[in-house]
Amino acid sequence: MAVYTHIDDRMLGDLLAGFDIGRALSFKGIAEGVENSNYFLETETGRFILTLYEKRVSAGDLPYFLGLMDHLSARGLPVPKPVADRGGRVLRELAGRPAAIIGFLDGISIAETTPPHCTAVGASLARLHRSGADFTLRRTNDLSLDGWHDMAEKTLTRADEVEPGLARFIEEELRFLHDHWPDGLPVGTIHADLFPDNVLFTGNTVTGLIDFYFACTDMLAYDVAVTMNAWCFDAGHRFVPARAKALIEQYDMLRGLEPAELDALPVLARGGALRFLLTRLHDWLFPVTGALVRPKDPREYLARIRYHRTVRDAADYVV
Amino acid sequence: MAVYTHIDDRMLGDLLAGFDIGRALSFKGIAEGVENSNYFLETETGRFILTLYEKRVSAGDLPYFLGLMDHLSARGLPVPKPVADRGGRVLRELAGRPAAIIGFLDGISIAETTPPHCTAVGASLARLHRSGADFTLRRTNDLSLDGWHDMAEKTLTRADEVEPGLARFIEEELRFLHDHWPDGLPVGTIHADLFPDNVLFTGNTVTGLIDFYFACTDMLAYDVAVTMNAWCFDAGHRFVPARAKALIEQYDMLRGLEPAELDALPVLARGGALRFLLTRLHDWLFPVTGALVRPKDPREYLARIRYHRTVRDAADYVV
Repeated sequence: MAVYTHIDDRMLGDLLAGFDIGRALSFKGIAEGVENSNYFLETETGRFILTLYEKRVSAGDLPYFLGLMDHLSARGLPVPKPVADRGGRVLRELAGRPAAIIGFLDGISIAETTPPHCTAVGASLARLHRSGADFTLRRTNDLSLDGWHDMAEKTLTRADEVEPGLARFIEEELRFLHDHWPDGLPVGTIHADLFPDNVLFTGNTVTGLIDFYFACTDMLAYDVAVTMNAWCFDAGHRFVPARAKALIEQYDMLRGLEPAELDALPVLARGGALRFLLTRLHDWLFPVTGALVRPKDPREYLARIRYHRTVRDAADYVV
Repeated sequence: MAVYTHIDDRMLGDLLAGFDIGRALSFKGIAEGVENSNYFLETETGRFILTLYEKRVSAGDLPYFLGLMDHLSARGLPVPKPVADRGGRVLRELAGRPAAIIGFLDGISIAETTPPHCTAVGASLARLHRSGADFTLRRTNDLSLDGWHDMAEKTLTRADEVEPGLARFIEEELRFLHDHWPDGLPVGTIHADLFPDNVLFTGNTVTGLIDFYFACTDMLAYDVAVTMNAWCFDAGHRFVPARAKALIEQYDMLRGLEPAELDALPVLARGGALRFLLTRLHDWLFPVTGALVRPKDPREYLARIRYHRTVRDAADYVV
C-alpha cells in the first residue's frame, strides 16, 4: 500500500468510546490489501477489522460498500458485518480518514484452487447475486467499457515496454468488445473482484467473502466471467476445464443462467480479462512507492484473453 | 521492512503438519517490526505468531533468542513462548528462511507513557533480570562501545546532513564514553530494546514483553538506562522525573541497585542514548527501500544525551 496510517492506543481508545464493543485487548496492523490500512482488533466482545480508507477508495462510495456488506451479512452470507456505533453510524473518521469497524471472519485464502473450491465459490457467487437482488443502492461499474478506454489512454504509449505488440493487441480487443459487448442481460449487485485472495476457506467450506470495494451494479454473468478468469486457470495460465465446470454448474444450479448469458460468456470473459490486464498494466508501469504488495504481472491476463479468443461458445468451458 | 515473505496456505499446511497445534483457522500478515516477516496465526488449539527471520537477524543468534524466550516464559514472565514441533525443534525453515511459531500475547502497546506504566515496566524489567540470571547461554552486546565506533565510522561523514555539528558531537561523546564506561557492574541477560513498542498492556498491567532480538549479556544497569531513555521523556523529548522515579524505584524494590550501578547511571544513559542515536542515524541516512516503517528521527536521542550531560548524579533522575 502507498500509505499505512498509524493508529495508537489513544486514538483507538477514543474511537472505541463511541461503540458498545468493550475495551481493546489486542490491536495489530495487518499487511494486507493495497487500498486501505487494516488493523486486527480484539475487544472484550469479539474480533474485528478496523479499516482506514486511504485515497484510492472514493469516500462517496463507502455508504454503498458498507451498506452492501451489512445487507449480505444480514441475509446469512459469510460477509464481514460493519459495526454501528452508539449513534447508529458505521462510517466514522480516524486520523483524518474515513474508518469503519467490521466483523472478523475466520478462514484462510488458498493459493491453488481445486474443483471442490470452485464448486464452493460458484455456490457463494450465486447466493451473493440472489441476496443482492433486493439491495436498493446502485453503483456504476467505472471499470467497464468506458473505463477501459480511459485506462488504455493512460497506458498504451508504454504498453510495449511490457510485451512488444501489447498496445496493438489491447486496441484490437477494445474494438472487438465495443462491437460485441452484450446488452439486455440480467443486471444486479456484483462483487466484481472475487479472486482467491478475497475468499476465505476452512477446508472446502467458504467462511468469508471479503473486499467489496469494487462491488457495483452490472451484469451478473460478467461477475461469473471475472470469477472464472480468477479461479479456473492454473499457475501456468492454462485453462482448467474441471474447475470451470465445477464453478459454472454449481452457480447455474443455484441461479439458473439464461441462454443469452451463456452465449455472452466468452465475450464477457474477454472483457473481464481486459479489465485486469489494464489495471495491472497501469500498476506495473506506474508502481506506487512504498507499496508492500508487488504489482502483479499483466501478462497473466493477456494469456487468458488469448485463450478466450479460441473458445467457440460457452459449452467449451464446461466440457 | 525490506522484505515481506509471502506464505501461502500450502506452505503453512506443510509446516503445521510437523506440529501438534491443530489446523489453521486464520492467517494474516502483520505490518509490524522492521527485521522480520510476522503472521498472526490462529489454529484449533490457540493463537500464535509465525515469524520468518529476514536477513537483518543473524541466524546463529536465533537459538539464543528463542531459548531466552522459552526460559523467561517458563518462569512465568509474560514472554511469547516458542512452540516446539513433534521433533522438539523450535527453529524451522520456511520459504528458505529460519522460522518459528511463538505464542500470541494479548495487550496493546502505548504511545504516551504515564508513571503507573513506568512502575509496571520497572517491575517487569527487574523480574526479567532476576529470571534471566540462570539462563546459561551468552551473547555479546555487539551494539556496545566497540559497535558504536564501527557505526560512527559508517555514518559520521554524512551526520551533519541531519544536523550541523552532529559529527563532532558524536565524536566527543564517543571519547567521553570510552574514558568513563563503567566496569565491574553486575552483568546478566538484558533485553536491550525495551521500548514502549515492545511492551503490551491491558490497562496498567503488563501482559507482554516482546521482541527479544537485541537481547544479550551485558550490564543490568545499562538495560535500566536504555529503558529510562525510552519511557521517561515526553513527546517533546523533555525528561519527566515522575516517570523515571516510578521506574527506578520499582525496579530497585524488586532487584536492589548497587551504589556503583546508581553512580554509573548517567554515563550508562548517555551510552544507551548514543546507541539509538547511531542506529537511527544509520537508518535515516541509508533508508531501506520498501520499508513499511518510516525511519525514526535520530535527533530525539541527541536531545536525550544533551539532557544527561546536565545531570550531576543518579539522584537527579528520581527527584
